[in-house]
Amino acid sequence: MNTQIPIIGLLTDFGLEDVYVCVMKAVIAGICPLARVIDLSHAVQPQNIHQAAFLLVNAVRYFPPGTVVVVVVDPGVGSARRAVAMRAGGYTFVGPDNGVLSYVAAELASEPQVAVELVDPAYRLPVVSSTFHGRDIFAPVAAHLACGVSVEAMGPPLQDLVALSQPTLSLKRDALIGEVLHVDRFGNVITSVGRLAWTANGDLDLEVAFGVERGRRVQVPARADVEMRGRVVGGISRTYAEVPHDMPLALLSSDGFLELAVRQGNAAEVFGAQVGDSVLVTLG
Amino acid sequence: MNTQIPIIGLLTDFGLEDVYVCVMKAVIAGICPLARVIDLSHAVQPQNIHQAAFLLVNAVRYFPPGTVVVVVVDPGVGSARRAVAMRAGGYTFVGPDNGVLSYVAAELASEPQVAVELVDPAYRLPVVSSTFHGRDIFAPVAAHLACGVSVEAMGPPLQDLVALSQPTLSLKRDALIGEVLHVDRFGNVITSVGRLAWTANGDLDLEVAFGVERGRRVQVPARADVEMRGRVVGGISRTYAEVPHDMPLALLSSDGFLELAVRQGNAAEVFGAQVGDSVLVTLG
Amino acid sequence: MNTQIPIIGLLTDFGLEDVYVCVMKAVIAGICPLARVIDLSHAVQPQNIHQAAFLLVNAVRYFPPGTVVVVVVDPGVGSARRAVAMRAGGYTFVGPDNGVLSYVAAELASEPQVAVELVDPAYRLPVVSSTFHGRDIFAPVAAHLACGVSVEAMGPPLQDLVALSQPTLSLKRDALIGEVLHVDRFGNVITSVGRLAWTANGDLDLEVAFGVERGRRVQVPARADVEMRGRVVGGISRTYAEVPHDMPLALLSSDGFLELAVRQGNAAEVFGAQVGDSVLVTLG
Repeated sequence: MNTQIPIIGLLTDFGLEDVYVCVMKAVIAGICPLARVIDLSHAVQPQNIHQAAFLLVNAVRYFPPGTVVVVVVDPGVGSARRAVAMRAGGYTFVGPDNGVLSYVAAELASEPQVAVELVDPAYRLPVVSSTFHGRDIFAPVAAHLACGVSVEAMGPPLQDLVALSQPTLSLKRDALIGEVLHVDRFGNVITSVGRLAWTANGDLDLEVAFGVERGRRVQVPARADVEMRGRVVGGISRTYAEVPHDMPLALLSSDGFLELAVRQGNAAEVFGAQVGDSVLVTLG
Repeated sequence: MNTQIPIIGLLTDFGLEDVYVCVMKAVIAGICPLARVIDLSHAVQPQNIHQAAFLLVNAVRYFPPGTVVVVVVDPGVGSARRAVAMRAGGYTFVGPDNGVLSYVAAELASEPQVAVELVDPAYRLPVVSSTFHGRDIFAPVAAHLACGVSVEAMGPPLQDLVALSQPTLSLKRDALIGEVLHVDRFGNVITSVGRLAWTANGDLDLEVAFGVERGRRVQVPARADVEMRGRVVGGISRTYAEVPHDMPLALLSSDGFLELAVRQGNAAEVFGAQVGDSVLVTLG
Repeated sequence: MNTQIPIIGLLTDFGLEDVYVCVMKAVIAGICPLARVIDLSHAVQPQNIHQAAFLLVNAVRYFPPGTVVVVVVDPGVGSARRAVAMRAGGYTFVGPDNGVLSYVAAELASEPQVAVELVDPAYRLPVVSSTFHGRDIFAPVAAHLACGVSVEAMGPPLQDLVALSQPTLSLKRDALIGEVLHVDRFGNVITSVGRLAWTANGDLDLEVAFGVERGRRVQVPARADVEMRGRVVGGISRTYAEVPHDMPLALLSSDGFLELAVRQGNAAEVFGAQVGDSVLVTLG
């Protein structure tokens, strides 16, 4: 029962109160009826490009090859910012050229990448507004891509996509200094310290995920102290169940980043942590 | 890859915390398994029929012909209010006869329309509750319509559907007076002044969208002053990017209505604007 | 147009702000592309197993036979708690063995049931984290079940699934004492007094839905007083429309449980009612 059904992922800051997301799905259904749409999230903070870039890079690897992912977090809609489609690592991405695709482009940098500027009116709605390119440009392009049009056919090639500053992680001799990237619904605080994996000797292997040191590797002892906003957690746990209820702990997020959590509690509240705060991991 | 897949749109005030929306989709899947459901929104304010009518009229034109749209905002459930199906403009609408379909009926008034009262038990669940007709009547009817039953087969014809008062827009010699219809997630304030379109000479053409003057046309100069709650914005912009960050501006919403916005900010907060507030456009 | 499309229901406490739900759907799409996913809700209060168990038992009967329902409310993820699949009443359920499936198991107790422990690595992602079994175990298992693998093939049989304490309903000679189980988006207060149905003589038939007295039947007069937090409603109504606007009333929820409501208002606010509060129905 392995039929070829095109998949389109949608990531926006539109929320679900309005009909903006619906309208994109309706446009897609009119152009490529067989495509299945999977929502990544529509709760990106309004116009928060960094958050969208981070959510995208964490979700994309779980989609089947061939998936088209549309990202519409687009404060510059109607200005001269370009619209792009990019093929990388077996996926195709569609969105504004404002950096929102730059984390995933870096993550998939070892794979062949092709990007084009979306200028062909054949793949747009007949009238293009200056306020809703998700409907007028990005949804139609995604639907045409899902139904078989190639990225190359969509417009002229682009080499110099806009790149965001990458999340920071400083590797010192005796410490790592990272930052808070995301607070999830449970109050778990996810940092830039990663990606981490447990090793056979019971310690952790860190492979830098972002920035110029991407790919560099460091050993992190399981007993390392983790400090955030003046509060220290001793050691990195394997599961929430290793500590009593209401106790803070450090562990690996489901994507391999260092996470501060409170068992059956809310770590962001307990630590007073926000996106951008520093985290210090003492290696010694 | 243009297979015929029936599409059903859902617009309710059920929220996503409960399983009410799920239950409607489960009922649909049991009757018409191939139908694809697209959510318009489930965040209509509880029992706000006007808001649902406005969201519906803005979304519907983007659906492919043949789409069935179910609207369940139904304060009168269990009373004598009628249940209806209406075919108009290539679409079919299903819902309570409380006016929630009246904006879209007016919008599509130039096209043939047929409405029936939903009384045939063959198209309902075996037991009909007095509190959840979305599940017991509207979802089964929509599924049967999507899978090929005609509107006419569903019940006796109806001529006199309930109509809501339409949004107001007064055309004076030197001014337009409209009202706020919607505040979206970004705080953009969408008014009844529309639909507007830019003309070749750089001004705007207004075609009245609601009420007895529907279709009447007026020229609106691009330099017109727009006033809301004592605050004046000078001129109508084409894009958010025309003003500096945090500056208010007036522009066209993605559906062609006059919108007050703040670039990368929240206009509803800046203006203190709410649904029902007046907006004044000085033409002189 | 009755094609066999596998259906997978998803009930979690993940919210829609993060990409956790998306990642589960992406994993499912990679394994069983034809499966259609229907969201029950993702707004279960974080780690509230009782709430999830109650929402599940109310939604499941509306799904077509053969549906696979995945429940991920999983405070013990990463601990020794078992992962299970259970076939009951024509449905298959997948989730942690923490009691979240125990209401539905009791509801479907008259039908044959089979449960297994999910231990076979063939039906998991290659790497299983200690924090996100929804992605690594439950989504892949559900996709394989939807695409035809049998429950029995998934692992060794289990007899002793964890059971939650059931909602309480005391049957006294002259009164019923139940508890508040759920407050919905409209502020309707849904209690454990049920399931109720109107009888031909204008009174009500109660068939106990939970606990050791499940199935016991009692007659409830329509004029019975209903008391919550010191406030008494006289009699049980058939519809919201039987009382004036803003008036409290007692009626049957769409699932047959006694519900306190306020016509076009919010009963939870008016009564000050919360989950766990008592409700007293005086029969005399």
